[in-house]
Amino acid sequence: MKRRVGILTSGGDCPGLNAAIRGVVHSAYNLFDVEIVGIADGYKGLIEGNYKEMRREDFDGILTLGGTILGTSRQPYRNMRKIEEDNVDKVAAMKQNYRKMKLDCLVTLGGNGTHKTANLLSEEGLNVIGLPKTIDNDIWGTDVTFGFHTAVDIATEVVDRIHTTANSHGRIMVIELMGNKAGWLTLYAGVAGGADVVLIPEIPYSIDALVHAVEERIRVKKRKFSIIAVAEGAMNLREAAMKGKERAAFRASEPYMSVSYRIADQLQQATGLESRVVVPGHFQRGGSPSPYDRVLATRFGVQAAKLIKEERYGMAVAQIGSIVTQNPLSEVAGKTKLVPKDHQMVEFARCMGIAFGD
Amino acid sequence: MKRRVGILTSGGDCPGLNAAIRGVVHSAYNLFDVEIVGIADGYKGLIEGNYKEMRREDFDGILTLGGTILGTSRQPYRNMRKIEEDNVDKVAAMKQNYRKMKLDCLVTLGGNGTHKTANLLSEEGLNVIGLPKTIDNDIWGTDVTFGFHTAVDIATEVVDRIHTTANSHGRIMVIELMGNKAGWLTLYAGVAGGADVVLIPEIPYSIDALVHAVEERIRVKKRKFSIIAVAEGAMNLREAAMKGKERAAFRASEPYMSVSYRIADQLQQATGLESRVVVPGHFQRGGSPSPYDRVLATRFGVQAAKLIKEERYGMAVAQIGSIVTQNPLSEVAGKTKLVPKDHQMVEFARCMGIAFGD
Amino acid sequence: MKRRVGILTSGGDCPGLNAAIRGVVHSAYNLFDVEIVGIADGYKGLIEGNYKEMRREDFDGILTLGGTILGTSRQPYRNMRKIEEDNVDKVAAMKQNYRKMKLDCLVTLGGNGTHKTANLLSEEGLNVIGLPKTIDNDIWGTDVTFGFHTAVDIATEVVDRIHTTANSHGRIMVIELMGNKAGWLTLYAGVAGGADVVLIPEIPYSIDALVHAVEERIRVKKRKFSIIAVAEGAMNLREAAMKGKERAAFRASEPYMSVSYRIADQLQQATGLESRVVVPGHFQRGGSPSPYDRVLATRFGVQAAKLIKEERYGMAVAQIGSIVTQNPLSEVAGKTKLVPKDHQMVEFARCMGIAFGD
Amino acid sequence: MKRRVGILTSGGDCPGLNAAIRGVVHSAYNLFDVEIVGIADGYKGLIEGNYKEMRREDFDGILTLGGTILGTSRQPYRNMRKIEEDNVDKVAAMKQNYRKMKLDCLVTLGGNGTHKTANLLSEEGLNVIGLPKTIDNDIWGTDVTFGFHTAVDIATEVVDRIHTTANSHGRIMVIELMGNKAGWLTLYAGVAGGADVVLIPEIPYSIDALVHAVEERIRVKKRKFSIIAVAEGAMNLREAAMKGKERAAFRASEPYMSVSYRIADQLQQATGLESRVVVPGHFQRGGSPSPYDRVLATRFGVQAAKLIKEERYGMAVAQIGSIVTQNPLSEVAGKTKLVPKDHQMVEFARCMGIAFGD
Repeated sequence: MKRRVGILTSGGDCPGLNAAIRGVVHSAYNLFDVEIVGIADGYKGLIEGNYKEMRREDFDGILTLGGTILGTSRQPYRNMRKIEEDNVDKVAAMKQNYRKMKLDCLVTLGGNGTHKTANLLSEEGLNVIGLPKTIDNDIWGTDVTFGFHTAVDIATEVVDRIHTTANSHGRIMVIELMGNKAGWLTLYAGVAGGADVVLIPEIPYSIDALVHAVEERIRVKKRKFSIIAVAEGAMNLREAAMKGKERAAFRASEPYMSVSYRIADQLQQATGLESRVVVPGHFQRGGSPSPYDRVLATRFGVQAAKLIKEERYGMAVAQIGSIVTQNPLSEVAGKTKLVPKDHQMVEFARCMGIAFGD
Repeated sequence: MKRRVGILTSGGDCPGLNAAIRGVVHSAYNLFDVEIVGIADGYKGLIEGNYKEMRREDFDGILTLGGTILGTSRQPYRNMRKIEEDNVDKVAAMKQNYRKMKLDCLVTLGGNGTHKTANLLSEEGLNVIGLPKTIDNDIWGTDVTFGFHTAVDIATEVVDRIHTTANSHGRIMVIELMGNKAGWLTLYAGVAGGADVVLIPEIPYSIDALVHAVEERIRVKKRKFSIIAVAEGAMNLREAAMKGKERAAFRASEPYMSVSYRIADQLQQATGLESRVVVPGHFQRGGSPSPYDRVLATRFGVQAAKLIKEERYGMAVAQIGSIVTQNPLSEVAGKTKLVPKDHQMVEFARCMGIAFGD
Repeated sequence: MKRRVGILTSGGDCPGLNAAIRGVVHSAYNLFDVEIVGIADGYKGLIEGNYKEMRREDFDGILTLGGTILGTSRQPYRNMRKIEEDNVDKVAAMKQNYRKMKLDCLVTLGGNGTHKTANLLSEEGLNVIGLPKTIDNDIWGTDVTFGFHTAVDIATEVVDRIHTTANSHGRIMVIELMGNKAGWLTLYAGVAGGADVVLIPEIPYSIDALVHAVEERIRVKKRKFSIIAVAEGAMNLREAAMKGKERAAFRASEPYMSVSYRIADQLQQATGLESRVVVPGHFQRGGSPSPYDRVLATRFGVQAAKLIKEERYGMAVAQIGSIVTQNPLSEVAGKTKLVPKDHQMVEFARCMGIAFGD
Repeated sequence: MKRRVGILTSGGDCPGLNAAIRGVVHSAYNLFDVEIVGIADGYKGLIEGNYKEMRREDFDGILTLGGTILGTSRQPYRNMRKIEEDNVDKVAAMKQNYRKMKLDCLVTLGGNGTHKTANLLSEEGLNVIGLPKTIDNDIWGTDVTFGFHTAVDIATEVVDRIHTTANSHGRIMVIELMGNKAGWLTLYAGVAGGADVVLIPEIPYSIDALVHAVEERIRVKKRKFSIIAVAEGAMNLREAAMKGKERAAFRASEPYMSVSYRIADQLQQATGLESRVVVPGHFQRGGSPSPYDRVLATRFGVQAAKLIKEERYGMAVAQIGSIVTQNPLSEVAGKTKLVPKDHQMVEFARCMGIAFGD
């Protein structure tokens, strides 16, 4: 029996997308009779009918390649959040193009937004399988997402190199890492890089506690330098008490580009120590996946092919413990896996003397 | 209450030893009143009474440092396998020095041999906690050991670089990776590096199946080059049927330095393709740990400190799922975690078209 | 004959400082009878008399270590630029402490500012040897400075990873690299990373030419993404025509944090393509030196020791062609080696299709 | 005026080949009207007439790619060394195919053997330009070849990781690096990695001097471990006195796979210290080029295009000082750039305490 499989990658760039695509395609070719249709630029391509038939050779040599050979886009699923007039049309267009492409199923690679749309399409009757990719590691129902550990590697390399500069100059270095809602990346890179302070969105900080942590370090450990790893979405107690729009307005009223600049400024004023900010930004989400992520992405891809073979659709692939498995898309969609305040990693980081500013 | 904690690292070098030592020490200082005694060169130092009091500062800046600041040795526990005359004396010496150092407990960092001796000492009444380190990932009761993923990173880098050479020259490249009994490292690096064939001790190979795999690749995929990832302990069907001594004698009778040279020779003769061997050897077990291993080693260290605080001895720290926990040393000692032939990683690798030579 | 050698590192952090210190010390010990005095935190330590006797072992294991074991500071030499009241006192303090330490000579590791002060002290009668370190590669009289190629490696890694993100999203990525006056780092990383546009302080750009370059790329090469490597000191034609203070005032009047944000904004408006900025900042100057820089720093250190042995002071060590040699400090001080507009690297980059925005 | 340019890569794999090809092609397209003919597998493809027309897009995205998209082979030029019956035919075939392809010129990328054949073809009236690639850095007339510094980076990474293992175990580690005739790679990686002993073909060693160096290290520096970096072509005094065939016969009579195993064995017997061998092999010549080599290879490529534009043939591109230029092929062919015994790098390495075993 032949299956015609459409593949799209959606949302922000993430290491391992091509490895996962390759995993789906090569194992599909080995497991059953298959035709692959590559959909360009995420859901945008599905809406606009931008796709092409692909040959098996098109997926050779992409295991280590960063980015996505299919292209991606962020916009469509954003608007998808509320089913408005406009989106009804988009969903209809996606369904129509799915039929037009004569797909037996659609494999979507993406994060929470992508899964939400994937579930919507599944509820609309399409055969969909979602693969969890994000450097944020914030997808519900899987222990880990591909892209996360590569981002941890990159962020840790930044912390490592900043360490020597901080030490040589006796400075406070504030390193702003990606993570608007979830602090996993900052938490892992902070522990891996030996940061002194870790600030994540899930644990609001007070500037007094922060200053205290830096000053104790000087007093007790005789160390003038401190490394502060800050998630871009970190909030102080006051911000944490605000509603989303209020917080956005408050931030826009500040002279700082982002939370890390504010923290650097406040720490410099309070401690008298020179403070500097580093913002590696998109550097954290590009380039070749780490071996860990290549294995994970490949396994996710194989699992997707196996599900297609068994015609088990409406699923989100996941790793639980050492095993790759799946959850119903309907259980995953709309949820976010944040860092619990009492998570073992947080507790252990505190044991190591890392301050969370609370 | 004060605790006097002895620490030793035993067995082969492994990335993350210093990170784990630092994890134990810093969290111990933060959790209770502690004195640290560093024991030199593994059990050898415990037998010979070679140790020194250490200050907290001695453990600063070692998170990223390869090797072990305490030194290590392989010999003593080897002889420990059978309790002979000689070893009775060694055990007695270790017990005596433990008392002489006035230790409240002993933390051992090592692999299967180390855990065996740790359990023996525990049965003799000493308070012992074992931390699982090995690049082989073959310790029973833990999903993963620290050092493993760093070794996978290094081995994969080798496979990556060899890939381009193999492709440019149309050659068969045989890469011999570490792993005498367990094939985890070769399996992971093989999948991560996109190897065409993976040979591990747990799955005996036949040279005919190997030649077939390489020739099919030429015939079907029009690719002249092949990448063969071989664990140093890989065996053909004939060797697998032999007893240990018989196999050792057979191998000694062959003109090859190791299994990889034999395979390269046989493949070259059978296919007519030029074949080359690469043996990265100890390169796989030295140097700075990866961020993944720094986090894991740190968590293991913290867990050891927590067990000491709670006076829960005779334990081997472990990661199960996403949680760091522990098993009784008595359950871990003497076991080895090999790759099950039907492990999901093996099955998925086969789905990807990777041949195991069986 | 015994020589007492003081060593200090001054100015911004730079990979290879410890390798160079080690080069001086180990070769000095091998070439003559020597005592080493480590001066803390650059000229600050010389002014304040903050130093200590060091043993040969203190320099073990530092070859690969980032930062400087002696500490550094930026301030003192800044004020040194004009010999005012205050500085007269500082120079006097430095001379006094040089005598107090009973130094036979002083080795200074630093950039242009450091060399200027070194020359000043040399003119005041002290025996001084300067080693050229800077990631900017802007020291007159040497083909290359240590730290430069490590910074190129790091900056290129950033460009590489950004490349895949830019490509996947069809975005303009503006990468701001270090270099206030000299564009060497941006030029090399731009060529090494395959940037489409390179903007350096030495070649003022016009926004029209920039927009044209990006649009031509879309029109001719059908590529929606562009990589723009910008030195932090890059200027448009209008700024280039301003005097220093005027330019500073103009920039302060703009809403942009730095030139890269302004360029991203203008490009986005002109082309309609999404534009993003990455600022790796101090990431470029920390951490372990590359093998190239370890060799270079070691050779510079040995040359310094040889000069001390021969009592040839008032010299700045340099590499010219393949040979390490030296120039008189008086010839080096006060000069800066900028990128000539007609430099072969610029000409060749243009041949490759790289636009300079002029 | 249109030029039809054939390109081939010959000899061993080397990082930077694709970057150099891209340099030739993109600058040729920008400088004049050009058609590119890709010749497969080095001179073999020229002899057999195996080539294809290539489009500009075929060279996109290859800057960072290891290996060579054109394929390479080692055999043909080997036989070329003596102009025998057989080779006359080969040369005739190459000339015939050059005409058949209607080439205006041929660009060859390779090492000494490649340059020799390139010169032979030039003498036969073909328009040839040679680009110096080799990890051995042994091409006459250029300060540096592309591929060399990437190989130094890889070899140094091996030395770095081995360092920690050697230290933790108190072992002698013998690291065999590539270099049959020239010791540049071993010399640079030895200095960059802080090796204690460096053995290169150009400086024959005596085992007594070697043992003395290791023992002095134990006696004076109290260090039990030693790192020995050995070029594969290193010779002891007795071998150095032999003629080529005699030496080959002597080596074949020994039980050792290569010189490094012999040295490890002799050192273990003489010092009683455990000794281990690491042979990274082809790992040193594969994979992505370093930023240094990407810049160098690109510049070499541009220079080739400029020479083609100016119709200056029979040239070998070279870097002299900071400038890329060229030498006549006739001056380069048949020469090898070995490490002079009194080279500044050797002298400086000795100043650092590195032993050469002489």
